[in-house]
Amino acid sequence: MSVTAPLGFTAAGLIAGLKPSGTKDLSLVVNTGPDTAVAAVYTSNRCKANPVLWSQKASANGQARAVVLNSGGANCYTGDFGHETTTLTAQATADLLTEAGTATQAEDILVCSTGLIGVGGQDFRDTIIDNLPPLVAAAEDSVAGGKHAAEAIMTTDTVAKTATREGSSGYTIGGMAKGAGMLAPGLATMLVVITTDAKVDQALLDQALRASTSQSFDRLDTDGCMSTNDTVILMSSGAHDAAVDTDEFTSLLRELCLDLMHQLHVDAEGAHHDIAITTQGAASEAEAVEVSRSVSRSALFKAAIFGQDPNWGRVVAQVGTTSATFDPTAIDVIINGTEVCRASGPYEDPEKVTFDRNVDVVIDLHAGDATATVWTSDLTHDYVEENSAYST
Amino acid sequence: MSVTAPLGFTAAGLIAGLKPSGTKDLSLVVNTGPDTAVAAVYTSNRCKANPVLWSQKASANGQARAVVLNSGGANCYTGDFGHETTTLTAQATADLLTEAGTATQAEDILVCSTGLIGVGGQDFRDTIIDNLPPLVAAAEDSVAGGKHAAEAIMTTDTVAKTATREGSSGYTIGGMAKGAGMLAPGLATMLVVITTDAKVDQALLDQALRASTSQSFDRLDTDGCMSTNDTVILMSSGAHDAAVDTDEFTSLLRELCLDLMHQLHVDAEGAHHDIAITTQGAASEAEAVEVSRSVSRSALFKAAIFGQDPNWGRVVAQVGTTSATFDPTAIDVIINGTEVCRASGPYEDPEKVTFDRNVDVVIDLHAGDATATVWTSDLTHDYVEENSAYST
Repeated sequence: MSVTAPLGFTAAGLIAGLKPSGTKDLSLVVNTGPDTAVAAVYTSNRCKANPVLWSQKASANGQARAVVLNSGGANCYTGDFGHETTTLTAQATADLLTEAGTATQAEDILVCSTGLIGVGGQDFRDTIIDNLPPLVAAAEDSVAGGKHAAEAIMTTDTVAKTATREGSSGYTIGGMAKGAGMLAPGLATMLVVITTDAKVDQALLDQALRASTSQSFDRLDTDGCMSTNDTVILMSSGAHDAAVDTDEFTSLLRELCLDLMHQLHVDAEGAHHDIAITTQGAASEAEAVEVSRSVSRSALFKAAIFGQDPNWGRVVAQVGTTSATFDPTAIDVIINGTEVCRASGPYEDPEKVTFDRNVDVVIDLHAGDATATVWTSDLTHDYVEENSAYST
Repeated sequence: MSVTAPLGFTAAGLIAGLKPSGTKDLSLVVNTGPDTAVAAVYTSNRCKANPVLWSQKASANGQARAVVLNSGGANCYTGDFGHETTTLTAQATADLLTEAGTATQAEDILVCSTGLIGVGGQDFRDTIIDNLPPLVAAAEDSVAGGKHAAEAIMTTDTVAKTATREGSSGYTIGGMAKGAGMLAPGLATMLVVITTDAKVDQALLDQALRASTSQSFDRLDTDGCMSTNDTVILMSSGAHDAAVDTDEFTSLLRELCLDLMHQLHVDAEGAHHDIAITTQGAASEAEAVEVSRSVSRSALFKAAIFGQDPNWGRVVAQVGTTSATFDPTAIDVIINGTEVCRASGPYEDPEKVTFDRNVDVVIDLHAGDATATVWTSDLTHDYVEENSAYST
């Protein structure tokens, strides 16, 4: 069901032919209303893909009717031609929806692309435009299309990622996500579409989305690389006309974002260990995030975890690169429950640490009460293999 | 010859037994004068090893008689005991030099350690202290000891690194370096000792050293990880009493630092390609460094180079994460002479790019006249292997 779990949404996904693998690669999510409120967050990379440049403008008024998404090409750094392709995609989709009975402007259509940077030429354009009529037709009245839509945005993902949550007054939130590599802050390389039938105004949508992504997707940092195409979109149809508790809605949305984030995490390219790095005793949440993130970006630490080596020295060395508040002689490090480092010195025997897929690293700065977790993956031969052979 | 190429220096290196490999691991460089001026730069990591904490204080007055260096243990995060070991090492060395006829205080002895973090217990201390008498004896009058000293600081280095330069008035600069992994800014994990018999005052030594390291060691960034033990020491004996051209001295020192840096670069752990990332057309040298460094830290870019994939999209994506001045639609990328990206779009066919050990990446921001190069390595299976199995 994913994005079609809430009332007021239809969706479709089909094989357009963008991906050499021959699997689904073109996706559509339509908000049939009555409301068409939207909130969105985009990559903070300054070199943004054409669909991001387009969608940022199109979503600025807080309204959107539909999202068209493709895998098999990022349409990034493809120049004016690439930007025109995005515009034509939005226009053609709007025309098709209008023909089908829902008056729609190009500016009501958001566009997302994922795949290789630099891919977005004539074939790419033609393949998308030619397949929009069957895509729009397939989405009509199709609640079952939510599954296909989630499948059609997969790239190196091994499984489609979806999640749903229900509010106590009966409304639903549904979501789909893709992303397996290049996950980093300021958003992971991911496309996420979340839908809800809750009757909430656009200001709340926006506020709840930012609060949720900053504590979920923004804290997944598998390889420190920030994508050019990251987009998280939240649309509300308002089709379930019951009172909404604002706090509950925000809390459920954050839960759903964390759920999707963990699905991205465990499917990260080439990972053998799913690592959670929690910094506690920090002077502020921001400093806790800074410290956890710095450790999540240490190639040496990540390689050590691959080798199941509880090399706490590489953790403390990363802490030392941050500007957080701490006493360099008072840092504790606990790996999978074993306190291998106390007061910045050896403590429990590292031989006691046992490893499985999940690795928990806790850093205590003894500088305050704030805590935050950043999730990352280990650095493995498979990561090197996947990312050295991806485009060739 | 290395550090003993200039007049006024003796050195030694021997097998103390710190390294399981049974190779040389304890090293001494003595400045026999007449001058004992010293300048030094240390890691900017806030979690510093004990020898760094000691040497920073000891070198603060600009004078030093000798440097004791060990491999086989970093004496980092080893608590009060570890700090006492460093103090005892300096005191014992000073006593031995005094007995041999050169009145020396502990504060005249700098100490450097390299190896695993957390190693620095009783055995480590005893092994060093017990071997100082033969080490000091071996250094006496020993110009040949320069070679042994360079060998005794090796860890995962496959070769000893040394270099010399001669000034037009006849003075000499000599140096030795170690470092093969964990190379990063704010210094690579490296120990470097440079000596000169040039008659230069301490202020010039300090100024020339900072100017040289900022353009050499600080721009080698093989894996983004900043060490806890990095130290570069420059000592002057003033034993060659001829006029020194200040500009020439600074220039030769920078050349020697670049020479040693390149030796570290080509010996980086697990590297298959030695990558030079030059950013040109930048608004300032600092922005050029920022852009080159951001690319040097992209795991995806480094994995692509390992796969000989001229994946320029991963270059532009990294440029987009910086705060440098540029137009996101005007970036050029040239890989090994082929302009694979012009104006942020595909240009020459990436198939034209050929690869050998050296890879040159040029990024043109078209935003000014400044240029800078950062050197890095590719991300390989061997890197993962070496760093996942290092301490176990």
